[in-house]
Amino acid sequence: MRQSQLFTKTRREAPKDEVSKNAALLIRAGFIHKEMAGVYSYLPMGLRVFKKIENIIREEMNALGGQEVELTALQDSEVWKKSGRWEDKVIDVWFKTELKSGSDVGLATTHEEPLTRLLTEYVSSYRDLPMAIYQFQTKFRNELRSKSGILRGREFVMKDLYSFSRTQEEHDEFYEKAKNAYRNIFNKVGIGQVTYLTKASGGSFSKYSHEFQTVTEAGEDTIYITDEDKKEAANQEIEKPDGGEAHKSIEVGNIFSLGTRFSEKLDLMFADEKGAKSPVIMGSYGIGLGRLMGTVVEVLSDDKGIVWPKEIAPFQVHLLSLTDEAKKLADEVYESLVSQGIEVLYDDREARAGEKFADADLMGIPTQVLIGAKALESKMLEVKDRATGNEKEMTTDNLITQLLTG
Amino acid sequence: MRQSQLFTKTRREAPKDEVSKNAALLIRAGFIHKEMAGVYSYLPMGLRVFKKIENIIREEMNALGGQEVELTALQDSEVWKKSGRWEDKVIDVWFKTELKSGSDVGLATTHEEPLTRLLTEYVSSYRDLPMAIYQFQTKFRNELRSKSGILRGREFVMKDLYSFSRTQEEHDEFYEKAKNAYRNIFNKVGIGQVTYLTKASGGSFSKYSHEFQTVTEAGEDTIYITDEDKKEAANQEIEKPDGGEAHKSIEVGNIFSLGTRFSEKLDLMFADEKGAKSPVIMGSYGIGLGRLMGTVVEVLSDDKGIVWPKEIAPFQVHLLSLTDEAKKLADEVYESLVSQGIEVLYDDREARAGEKFADADLMGIPTQVLIGAKALESKMLEVKDRATGNEKEMTTDNLITQLLTG
Repeated sequence: MRQSQLFTKTRREAPKDEVSKNAALLIRAGFIHKEMAGVYSYLPMGLRVFKKIENIIREEMNALGGQEVELTALQDSEVWKKSGRWEDKVIDVWFKTELKSGSDVGLATTHEEPLTRLLTEYVSSYRDLPMAIYQFQTKFRNELRSKSGILRGREFVMKDLYSFSRTQEEHDEFYEKAKNAYRNIFNKVGIGQVTYLTKASGGSFSKYSHEFQTVTEAGEDTIYITDEDKKEAANQEIEKPDGGEAHKSIEVGNIFSLGTRFSEKLDLMFADEKGAKSPVIMGSYGIGLGRLMGTVVEVLSDDKGIVWPKEIAPFQVHLLSLTDEAKKLADEVYESLVSQGIEVLYDDREARAGEKFADADLMGIPTQVLIGAKALESKMLEVKDRATGNEKEMTTDNLITQLLTG
Repeated sequence: MRQSQLFTKTRREAPKDEVSKNAALLIRAGFIHKEMAGVYSYLPMGLRVFKKIENIIREEMNALGGQEVELTALQDSEVWKKSGRWEDKVIDVWFKTELKSGSDVGLATTHEEPLTRLLTEYVSSYRDLPMAIYQFQTKFRNELRSKSGILRGREFVMKDLYSFSRTQEEHDEFYEKAKNAYRNIFNKVGIGQVTYLTKASGGSFSKYSHEFQTVTEAGEDTIYITDEDKKEAANQEIEKPDGGEAHKSIEVGNIFSLGTRFSEKLDLMFADEKGAKSPVIMGSYGIGLGRLMGTVVEVLSDDKGIVWPKEIAPFQVHLLSLTDEAKKLADEVYESLVSQGIEVLYDDREARAGEKFADADLMGIPTQVLIGAKALESKMLEVKDRATGNEKEMTTDNLITQLLTG
């Protein structure tokens, strides 16, 4: 894409009321826009990152055998009253409103209830199980305070996966597979090295749940790393190990054994081979996409701006034309890269080279290609790695080969 | 996909309270689930159709030069008060709720206000224009009655595109291009032949807007076809031509010249070459995705069920294994088709042939491949066209060639 066509622009300063690093950088780079505290719109560059994260997660969910659905935000109060979670003292972040008829409706904070009720129409026999169902769906949470940028939104997209099993063993087996899928996701988006599995508080049906916690100063939790090789840690809220160094961290994913808590209350039963009925054993598995994107920014940015890992970068290459004379060569390189299917943001704007360098570093595309006097003379491209700052000279063909094979 | 793995099942009867044909068929086929009146979840088969419609629209929006964003549902009341649309007597379908702090927030029914305000941060000069911005975003509308299935939802995804121009001529040119893009969309989803352009009521800045109206008994409007070749009609609300046959119809898209109504109130100005400031000229262009999907069902279904056009069908092929003996051959055909990248729903369930035929007709995948005693004997596949009911015998290779080239 030609940057002259992109409607967003970078800005030197974040809005004064924006105290979080992730949102400040993303707003300055033109990736998101703050509508109000905890409510952010995604602009073209930000939406590209968001969709790449979504696709990484979708692949892993499909590999788990997950079937994708999209449930609704508007929630009938009846099913939540049945489960005992309609009251504000039970779920304290409800947004509630009403239909013209006067009926109460809520905006979903999570989806155990509607999905469990829905499945009573499709599950009756052991032959219908096990199953796993997931969605990317907007949640609404009326948080009292919202100062963490996109780490904790009042409106945000969550990938929520739910598993439905016949036996505890079947559930446990899926639960372990989900753990591995989550590992893969955190590795692919570039935070695997600083993300640890911890125990978290359980519920009526299991002693513990599990969380994936990423080490960052922006985190609200504290963990003690107990096994660096296995990437395991202890959450201060649950346990305090003898050793282990304390780190601030943020929960980027949780996996939860729900037992039969919802299936009993909402009557999701299955008959076994002999016709005896039992409640379905459930699990839930959540990842907030904005939170994940914000965590990547918190962990990987430097003093110049964002540093996107290539798997989720909005573009693979940021091509900068630095002088008027360089424009023709830059146009040619742009066409060559695009014709190979490489995603290129081409800074073809009439602007000073210094401004282009600063913007490119702020926006954080992994590979910068600088075309100015030097390139015109040597016919070699200056290729700069955003993360390390290392520069190399190479031909267009070599760059293409590196990008397509790297 | 193996149908034995799909968690949804077909059902003989729609829910008793479902009076619309589109939702009744989609629920019976397991494509959607009714949460409450006007609020429907998308199940795996329905979500596949929905995503194909989304991609067809996205291609056309990108071809128009549209840049994709995703704005928020939660709306700060301030910007709507400024434009004069916060009051319930102006927009009578608001859902409103409040933050814990007590501030009023609304759920977006449309997005002119937040997008116009957002752009004041990015537009200042004639050099920043023209531009076109679009999104696929969930709208909430507190409809008094909601009996039309997914044709008129209380919660639904809309593609909304907004254009920003410097002069009336520039606006008019884009407006005509948008008309053509809409034509392409309706043609691709299979309702082009029964979709007509009509004038609709304008506003303070233009005498007329335009609507695309699709002829169907489920429609709430009445149009008179005035030019069958050009696919033009007159909307009863606006004009009554001398000739022309009356038809019930539903609005599947609208395009609207907004003039400077929003830019003046929300201060979206640009400076021309001489520094003189003018308000930006805007247009808005909407398509409800659920409404479009529901319209396709209303128009193309028959007494056996849904008939999907291949461009938006959930799968291209519905492969039915009709007997135990046929399973091995059906498995082989399934593998052959899938290895060629063909999307196949494979009915591998243990069920009677009659039940499989009825389910396949209800679900409406365009090409049915029947494998039973006849195929085992002749080694030829029975290939049935869902729309016409025509059957042909062909080899697997011929079927693959037909699917990949057709």
